[in-house]
Amino acid sequence: VAALVCRHNPTLLWARNGADVEEINTTRRHTKRLGDVQLPRRLRATTDLEEAVSDADVVVVGVPTSGFRETVAASAPFVRPWVPVVSLSKGFEAGTMKRMTEIVTELLPGHPVAALSGPNLAKEIMAGSAAASVIATADQEVAMELQSVLGQGMFRIYRNHDVIGCEVAGALKNVVAVATGMAQGLSVGDNTRGAVITRGLSEITRVGVALGAEPLTFAGLAGMGDLITTCISPLSRNRFVGEQLGIGRPLDEVLAGMTSVAEGVRTAPVLRELAERLGLELPVCGEVWRVVAGEITPNEAYRGLELAAGHENEPG
Amino acid sequence: VAALVCRHNPTLLWARNGADVEEINTTRRHTKRLGDVQLPRRLRATTDLEEAVSDADVVVVGVPTSGFRETVAASAPFVRPWVPVVSLSKGFEAGTMKRMTEIVTELLPGHPVAALSGPNLAKEIMAGSAAASVIATADQEVAMELQSVLGQGMFRIYRNHDVIGCEVAGALKNVVAVATGMAQGLSVGDNTRGAVITRGLSEITRVGVALGAEPLTFAGLAGMGDLITTCISPLSRNRFVGEQLGIGRPLDEVLAGMTSVAEGVRTAPVLRELAERLGLELPVCGEVWRVVAGEITPNEAYRGLELAAGHENEPG
Repeated sequence: VAALVCRHNPTLLWARNGADVEEINTTRRHTKRLGDVQLPRRLRATTDLEEAVSDADVVVVGVPTSGFRETVAASAPFVRPWVPVVSLSKGFEAGTMKRMTEIVTELLPGHPVAALSGPNLAKEIMAGSAAASVIATADQEVAMELQSVLGQGMFRIYRNHDVIGCEVAGALKNVVAVATGMAQGLSVGDNTRGAVITRGLSEITRVGVALGAEPLTFAGLAGMGDLITTCISPLSRNRFVGEQLGIGRPLDEVLAGMTSVAEGVRTAPVLRELAERLGLELPVCGEVWRVVAGEITPNEAYRGLELAAGHENEPG
Repeated sequence: VAALVCRHNPTLLWARNGADVEEINTTRRHTKRLGDVQLPRRLRATTDLEEAVSDADVVVVGVPTSGFRETVAASAPFVRPWVPVVSLSKGFEAGTMKRMTEIVTELLPGHPVAALSGPNLAKEIMAGSAAASVIATADQEVAMELQSVLGQGMFRIYRNHDVIGCEVAGALKNVVAVATGMAQGLSVGDNTRGAVITRGLSEITRVGVALGAEPLTFAGLAGMGDLITTCISPLSRNRFVGEQLGIGRPLDEVLAGMTSVAEGVRTAPVLRELAERLGLELPVCGEVWRVVAGEITPNEAYRGLELAAGHENEPG
């Protein structure tokens, strides 16, 4: 996102890791995440959070969900009044089960808060391919401003006022991507992949609606769009984890070999707790949290999915 | 479908082509469509329509939409009273713009009529992979009976009362699959593929709702499920046609090389007329009917899709 925005707006990227910052500033690369991709010359990075935040008119937070609260809390003293905060992170906080924008509102009350979500594989966008995304925020005036700051060339941004829906969709699609990856690893075929993605979206929608989201959001880019891209793309980390589990590799080994976070693995146990609290039955996601917890194998999960079929609108 | 049903119910398959019937009855194969797949020994085929229909307690029609009316009309004198007719064909009749079950109702008034639709790649089902499908019919008693006749082992069948929705979804998904195939042929990336499938489903839903369907149907297996499978599977004929157009081959040449029908190519011009009559704007499907009509190239189609982005719920 920083690489896109910096083309038209002065942008300062904060990163925790000094070696990453050094690499970005000197070689214009971030090999660990983007391989050979050349970053724009205008993009500058720093490890100094105060420097990065204190002069910003828009703050964009794109850290893993496990470090989200800590990072926003450390930034809070330096964020100027009225400045909107945009979250790119997808997941729920373990324990509190809060969405990322809820954490922002808690730590920076009074600031407009938004979530950016959609079918956006970073490597494809950096390669100049077209992509569409959704900026979700309550105030449509703020949304229109952010639309023009963040949208650049082939990267189109739609607005949506349903923040809860966009965030729930972004978080839970990773869990369904693990399920679809398992299907692929087990070679159960594209009929089943199509069915798992579809029944998965229906589960995501039920969770979202129970949390106050609008059903229509899940049919949009941040819902179905992001879910499909995540489930079909060879570049998706969550789909990859599922696939490796499906071919029989142990979870620890798969995660140890990855340089970046597969949020679906973290979201699954939080979703389990959330589903219990909301009293929702989620057969597809349920198989994922049981596999991640080591209670069943992917093979057993797929056998578990063959339930009696009733009317389509019923759960199960 | 005949190969599935014959395992538990006496089944007689009608086919127009004597050589196909001969091959099925003697070698238990239908090479043209199913390659090396071995058909069950219990499956018998005939070219005699009267023989196939006159003794049937359920009639299943799976011919291309261009031959649908003719085939049902020829069968009508032999269909016994009360016998339900199930359509597997996906599309609208050119000229009348009727759905296939509307043709059945016209020619066989008083008979229960149903459509079977869903993510069902024949080759995968024949290979024993799990699949889920939807039987759509107004009478839920009939639906439950058909559920047990057609559902076998790994082939699960859900019920849905929304016949219009299931048929519209089945017909239009082929048009969106051509669009997705073009995206793949042009190598525009998975972000765009996810976005095209999503915006495509939104167009399908708008057409369906305008024709009297329920929106929820399009989020189900006959809607989103079938759409995704068709758009991602290397086995899909409509996706294949789009891909070949995307890499620059002329339509005539692509169709000449195929042994079976790509209904999306036929449905596109009918949809164009239907959309005009309904006053609907369909950017994704519109690019397909313009490419199929030879008015623009796939490359121009994809440039045309980069519209100004507004609120997600608006068309465009």
